[in-house]
Amino acid sequence: MGKTYIFGHKNPDTDSITSSLVMADFERKLGNAEAKACRLGNVNKETEYVLNYLKIEAPELIENVEDGANVILVDHNSPSESIDNLNNVNILKVVDHHKLALETAYPLFYRAEPVGCTETVMYKLYKENGFTIDKTIASLMLSAIISDTLLLKSPTTTEDDKKAVEELSKISGINAESYGLEMLKAGTDLSSFSIDEILHLDAKKIDFKNVKAIVNQVNTADISDVMKMKKDLEDRMNEIIAEENLDLFMLLITDIVNSNSQVIALGKSASLVEKSYGVKLENNTALLKGVVSRKKQVVPIMTENA
Amino acid sequence: MGKTYIFGHKNPDTDSITSSLVMADFERKLGNAEAKACRLGNVNKETEYVLNYLKIEAPELIENVEDGANVILVDHNSPSESIDNLNNVNILKVVDHHKLALETAYPLFYRAEPVGCTETVMYKLYKENGFTIDKTIASLMLSAIISDTLLLKSPTTTEDDKKAVEELSKISGINAESYGLEMLKAGTDLSSFSIDEILHLDAKKIDFKNVKAIVNQVNTADISDVMKMKKDLEDRMNEIIAEENLDLFMLLITDIVNSNSQVIALGKSASLVEKSYGVKLENNTALLKGVVSRKKQVVPIMTENA
Repeated sequence: MGKTYIFGHKNPDTDSITSSLVMADFERKLGNAEAKACRLGNVNKETEYVLNYLKIEAPELIENVEDGANVILVDHNSPSESIDNLNNVNILKVVDHHKLALETAYPLFYRAEPVGCTETVMYKLYKENGFTIDKTIASLMLSAIISDTLLLKSPTTTEDDKKAVEELSKISGINAESYGLEMLKAGTDLSSFSIDEILHLDAKKIDFKNVKAIVNQVNTADISDVMKMKKDLEDRMNEIIAEENLDLFMLLITDIVNSNSQVIALGKSASLVEKSYGVKLENNTALLKGVVSRKKQVVPIMTENA
Repeated sequence: MGKTYIFGHKNPDTDSITSSLVMADFERKLGNAEAKACRLGNVNKETEYVLNYLKIEAPELIENVEDGANVILVDHNSPSESIDNLNNVNILKVVDHHKLALETAYPLFYRAEPVGCTETVMYKLYKENGFTIDKTIASLMLSAIISDTLLLKSPTTTEDDKKAVEELSKISGINAESYGLEMLKAGTDLSSFSIDEILHLDAKKIDFKNVKAIVNQVNTADISDVMKMKKDLEDRMNEIIAEENLDLFMLLITDIVNSNSQVIALGKSASLVEKSYGVKLENNTALLKGVVSRKKQVVPIMTENA
């Protein structure tokens, strides 16, 4: 069927990168020999740790695909997180675990489940098709599930995720707990990033009804480390608010060890954070106890209160 | 988890009715004891034939479900074809074979494939879960696949549909060819319908870009039978165009034996039919050779040319 480009979302995380690699393997097993794993952005440090550990190469960086090309989307379906000409390509498949945000003019293969990670869905697809999951594929899947569920502690975690981690640990021979903590910690190293880069590490544009927002999430093993940069972060956040005409910029600094997030909220709709979580912002910041999941603990609550 | 309402689209066809019944069985097998098959409109004559043949009752007619209710959508995902308060209910699952038209604020189980019939996807779900398909369930699935694919002759037909029909014929003991033709013919009996009812039998509101249209499809074993009513049909079509402020009303009279459609096209955008199919409308009508599928042979072509 000609080349098929497989990619996760812009600003790729470990799930997006590994899912494109795993999906390419899956497609080859289905007989689609020209399935090609791609990525829409730089590999982050957490994912770099995974790829180095497994001694495999990152998918190729692609900026554009030609109109009419065959594509498969993994770990996203929202056009705002995808290639710019998504409306002009032929989407063959979507495998995802996010809310629905895609309209098409044609039917396609669409598989989404409300689980913690796209790789948990991929794991089920391998099982359903009777395909063998080799050690590398298992390691990639395992890494992504640990990443997205913060070692199965995020409220997005489901029984399916736990079951997958258990079996994938066995196949890969990887101890999920110790490997996972090292991997997550590798992702919290901000030393080489500028303030601007930190603010774009995992930034998503989200509309809470009429509130135009960016929610950026930064994982850390120690919130106070990141809060040392608060003044500089706020200055740049205010610039981005002006540049992009935002109503709200939320920076979630997520403590992956204790499962809390410190939020810095700026913009004219910052009080929506106070209303949504029953907290008082002091100097633009508050601790959101137990909040670690943007998808489950930010988007629905902020949308409801907007 | 409390009651779960399962329903197909408004103006239900055999796929929508049987898929709600089959999905209720599937959910009960998954442990969801309160899954309830429903329908959003009257049972058509083809479906009546199926239910009478199998001696089973139609799903309950529901007009509304309470806000916050758990629902499962089968054979549709477009809000315009669903319950009016779709935005205020909790969609647990979608199983479908149409283009994507649904946005949600939350992740959900979504399973769609570009196959001829929702029941082909249901068939795969039973297989994947290792569930037994009993004789009644097999008969329901088989009936819907025959209906949607016009006995595997529609261009929407895939290898998956053919494989399902083969196995479902064995399980049900039903001869697909002879049973299918009787069933399809039962659906073409227009004797008890008023002109207005005929024009609403399988009417879908579709926007071809900016062209606001209704496309109604009527199956027949003899096009000339329906064309005898042309004058009356046109008069009522023109009234509906005025009432609903339409740009186009297409009536497809589909010959299920020879796989052609006679189209009657009215409204200020009627020439879009000429442009899309390279035909000349004479007295508002033309033969569209080989056209039997609204989804595959009308929506994409008309959208492209609009």
